[in-house]
Amino acid sequence: MKLYRKNDFPLHRVREHLETGPVVLVSSTFMGETNIMTMAWHMMMEFTPALFASIISNQNHSFELIRKARECVINVPTVDMIDTVVRIGNSTGGDIDKFEKFGLTKAPAAIVKAPLIGECYASFECRLADGSKIDKYNMFIWEVVKAHVSPSPKRPKTIHYKGNGEFRIAGETISRRRMFRPEIL
Amino acid sequence: MKLYRKNDFPLHRVREHLETGPVVLVSSTFMGETNIMTMAWHMMMEFTPALFASIISNQNHSFELIRKARECVINVPTVDMIDTVVRIGNSTGGDIDKFEKFGLTKAPAAIVKAPLIGECYASFECRLADGSKIDKYNMFIWEVVKAHVSPSPKRPKTIHYKGNGEFRIAGETISRRRMFRPEIL
Repeated sequence: MKLYRKNDFPLHRVREHLETGPVVLVSSTFMGETNIMTMAWHMMMEFTPALFASIISNQNHSFELIRKARECVINVPTVDMIDTVVRIGNSTGGDIDKFEKFGLTKAPAAIVKAPLIGECYASFECRLADGSKIDKYNMFIWEVVKAHVSPSPKRPKTIHYKGNGEFRIAGETISRRRMFRPEIL
Repeated sequence: MKLYRKNDFPLHRVREHLETGPVVLVSSTFMGETNIMTMAWHMMMEFTPALFASIISNQNHSFELIRKARECVINVPTVDMIDTVVRIGNSTGGDIDKFEKFGLTKAPAAIVKAPLIGECYASFECRLADGSKIDKYNMFIWEVVKAHVSPSPKRPKTIHYKGNGEFRIAGETISRRRMFRPEIL
């Protein structure tokens, strides 16, 4: 797996990396314990502030770490990491250190305590913006407070879970820019 | 555009068509007025009941129709409809009848008043399950109460918006089923 050198990325453009619906890896740290989980139930909510919602099942070892830390990092993997992504989703941080076990690189975040995953081309530092639906739905509403994105690949082959152990890989890019009203671009 | 004959589909498997993050077309009806909007900010929330969240900007003509009707249909288009999808997103139902203007076919729903879109391979009838975050975030929490899916295509070329008028098309399907713990398949 490749290590990416990431640059600062504008917060209002975070949607360019999350709105297509990729599986993401969520890194978290609380009281010295660090973990990673896979997550596919998430959506953009607002451009500015950059709000983002996700469902984190309370069956996950990460749930309590994230709930208590009130912060996390959302990392976007590509298809070269698919086996690692599946192994992360099928093991528990209660038993193992996933960074060590899967040979992933912790890179320091700028604002939150949780590390970025060096092998992911994009990482978004998040702080809990609204926890009022955690108890009822396991829903976390995040504000992305710092974004890190590698300038390449331009068209990352993100992975999109469809259930039953199957993924779709992001394919062809099609532009219809000329058909858009300028104000909604 | 092709018309699909859709079959009943199990509600707990709705994720197979929504979790990858496709752009969807939302049809709604209130007091005799029908409209369609495009939507990409959505996520699965629960298998049973089949809960699903979405952000519907109050700038959309559909917002008031949907808020008042408390129901809608989520339809999943494929890449053959991309120009129609973009035109729907760049026009307003305040000015035109989008079904008529774009030559789309209304098919009757089983439970809700809004029509299914005949040219979409999958349609999900939704009732509002929780409107408590509409005022603050434009967030609607839906229960899918009836699912209609065409048996083909097996691997629909769904379209995934990334901003700037650009879309990624769902590409290759990769299975890692053998690496999954049975209980999370």
